[in-house]
Amino acid sequence: MNGLLVLQSDFGLSDGAVAAMEGVALSVDPHLQLYSLTHEIPPFDTYEASYRLLQVVPFWPKGSVFVSVVDPGVGSSRRSCVAKTVTGQYIVTPDNGSLSHIARVIGIESVREISGEERREGSRYTQTFHGRDIYAYTGARLAAGLVTYDYIGPEYDKSEIKMLEMPEASFEDGMIIGTIETLDVRFGSLWTNVSSELFRKLGAKRKDLIDISIYNGERKVHRSFVTLAETFADVEIGESLIYVNSMNHMAVAINQGSFADAYHIGIRNGWKITMELAERR
Amino acid sequence: MNGLLVLQSDFGLSDGAVAAMEGVALSVDPHLQLYSLTHEIPPFDTYEASYRLLQVVPFWPKGSVFVSVVDPGVGSSRRSCVAKTVTGQYIVTPDNGSLSHIARVIGIESVREISGEERREGSRYTQTFHGRDIYAYTGARLAAGLVTYDYIGPEYDKSEIKMLEMPEASFEDGMIIGTIETLDVRFGSLWTNVSSELFRKLGAKRKDLIDISIYNGERKVHRSFVTLAETFADVEIGESLIYVNSMNHMAVAINQGSFADAYHIGIRNGWKITMELAERR
Amino acid sequence: MNGLLVLQSDFGLSDGAVAAMEGVALSVDPHLQLYSLTHEIPPFDTYEASYRLLQVVPFWPKGSVFVSVVDPGVGSSRRSCVAKTVTGQYIVTPDNGSLSHIARVIGIESVREISGEERREGSRYTQTFHGRDIYAYTGARLAAGLVTYDYIGPEYDKSEIKMLEMPEASFEDGMIIGTIETLDVRFGSLWTNVSSELFRKLGAKRKDLIDISIYNGERKVHRSFVTLAETFADVEIGESLIYVNSMNHMAVAINQGSFADAYHIGIRNGWKITMELAERR
Repeated sequence: MNGLLVLQSDFGLSDGAVAAMEGVALSVDPHLQLYSLTHEIPPFDTYEASYRLLQVVPFWPKGSVFVSVVDPGVGSSRRSCVAKTVTGQYIVTPDNGSLSHIARVIGIESVREISGEERREGSRYTQTFHGRDIYAYTGARLAAGLVTYDYIGPEYDKSEIKMLEMPEASFEDGMIIGTIETLDVRFGSLWTNVSSELFRKLGAKRKDLIDISIYNGERKVHRSFVTLAETFADVEIGESLIYVNSMNHMAVAINQGSFADAYHIGIRNGWKITMELAERR
Repeated sequence: MNGLLVLQSDFGLSDGAVAAMEGVALSVDPHLQLYSLTHEIPPFDTYEASYRLLQVVPFWPKGSVFVSVVDPGVGSSRRSCVAKTVTGQYIVTPDNGSLSHIARVIGIESVREISGEERREGSRYTQTFHGRDIYAYTGARLAAGLVTYDYIGPEYDKSEIKMLEMPEASFEDGMIIGTIETLDVRFGSLWTNVSSELFRKLGAKRKDLIDISIYNGERKVHRSFVTLAETFADVEIGESLIYVNSMNHMAVAINQGSFADAYHIGIRNGWKITMELAERR
Repeated sequence: MNGLLVLQSDFGLSDGAVAAMEGVALSVDPHLQLYSLTHEIPPFDTYEASYRLLQVVPFWPKGSVFVSVVDPGVGSSRRSCVAKTVTGQYIVTPDNGSLSHIARVIGIESVREISGEERREGSRYTQTFHGRDIYAYTGARLAAGLVTYDYIGPEYDKSEIKMLEMPEASFEDGMIIGTIETLDVRFGSLWTNVSSELFRKLGAKRKDLIDISIYNGERKVHRSFVTLAETFADVEIGESLIYVNSMNHMAVAINQGSFADAYHIGIRNGWKITMELAERR
């Protein structure tokens, strides 16, 4: 453990929920270094929680402990767990799908259920804030070395980890079909599930034009030719591009604009994107 | 002192005001560990500032120093003070009501007025940013042990601490009457001033139905039967519930919905909630 | 170096971009202390980035390292640089105008171009997230002492630093003419480019009335008499005032209101404000 504890939640930063969790963690050990992944996960959106862990966890040093609290089923039978990634970080979370991306893309070495005793003293009066009373507390004890991973509770089989449905992108007859997993939120770029490896099957080169179509269910809501760019500077301001994003997947953007806003594009359920090579440059 | 300094304000995080305060604090001692309670207190809302301190301060270790800057009367005759709580934390704040909840619920051991000399060097040119020039500076000196609490300035009588009006909930003829103090902001749950102890007088058990009515002034704006739940999982998604929140008070919510948005419920002035036992399950 | 690393960007806090940068920095050295200036710079707004650096950098201790990533030209020919201020802080940033205010108001001692080798290992697959792969990485190495400023890359002439156009305020025939540089965002106060020194030429004293007019291009959009106040408490709630702000410049506000919202006032391009002494009190 390296003393780094990183919190994620859907609590927002407008009230005291996050700071209460931090106080609990620092009461366990005031020398921990606390950071935030984000607290703006849309309420109860475990898919987004899972995605943001993938975006961040692999870039943190081994021994970092993440606490993710997006928990639509607080108090239900979903397990509370600690997962150890194959890259050496730990994730404390309800086992409710929040581990899906890390499990599939990075890999989980093992997972343990948090035992019932891992709970902040004096917290039995409420059953509604496990983020503070169980997850932040347990994460802090783990990060501080007051409990070792092996003593968190019983290991269970990785195959029991709750996985969200994650459609795979495909390539057929010169066309890639994928989904829009999320947005580069502030900029409105579309982050697809099409890996740069899969995209290479189109045989497209920098500056080639790609024919993209976007569907919401059966309805086509957008079609255009966009430039395959290595960097935003490859196109003019206001021009659309497709590029390899920071997660090594294909993304679609307007240079200094918002593609999602401009064309009213949404994410996930029912949204689909196709890509074909249109014209060589 | 433990080197932990926690800032709260109504400055937001969109400009450099908070980071300027942090720079001043770390110029006093770069080894301090700075955290934020929230900076999204609605502008000038000392009641909210007071409530959020109650939500957070007791969960931090003894010797933590809080700096709260919600200051509608900057430059007026309101005192600048440091309060020591009975649980061993310190709060640096204008004495303008921001201490009300902590004083009533947790207890303040003593309070001292910050002397005129406790001010960042070179800051006389402006009288409009006491958060940076007085409060962050003084809080940092206190947290770093460069000034002890006894030398902050003269002690004054606790009875002089400015207290906001805080109506008490009551129980009469089988009915509880309370107010809505604030929201669980991101989720829209109503946090009432009805303690779980007072609520017990209804004699209700888990899963019983509670008849609640909500008034804005004399006008009734909502009535429904909600389930007394121990946890959100006790009810269906979309169902309403009443439960003991993380502050040991009664709260009203829609499972995975926003009660405040759904029924246009506001907080504090003029808002009232009644609770009766309607039906045993 | 003092181990303090401060990040600024236009990424927002809703996804994992900032936390990915932080992870990269802490992978360089987990003992760094990371803070944020703001991540709410309007997308691609280098002027705002420049202004917020001025608002914050001088208040941090010598040896602090700032990383500012507002980068409309990612991948273009704009240089990546580290600037050393005359007050002893370091700023890692694209050289795209983000240094304008610090250069003019505080002063830059020297500037170096970041060499092509200063790049996170394994990051060649994407050219679109220099914030994570170059700036946070380089800033962390500098803050951690793993590379010294002299070895960051070749020095270049300060006169080559990209400077944004910054109109100067003027005084003529008893009238000051200035611009509105930015807002005190949460409160809607107008922060002008009129220094308190220049304003003194009006010969106005506390409580005197100042005649202000505000123009959008040629069109006058507001005129009123506002009180010259030392502090907000000098005027009634809801009354307008002009005062010396925390950056030693003149600002215009409504006490506990939003001047910008009330009169639909914008900032920068095309916006102008005049000030005259109207009436002695």
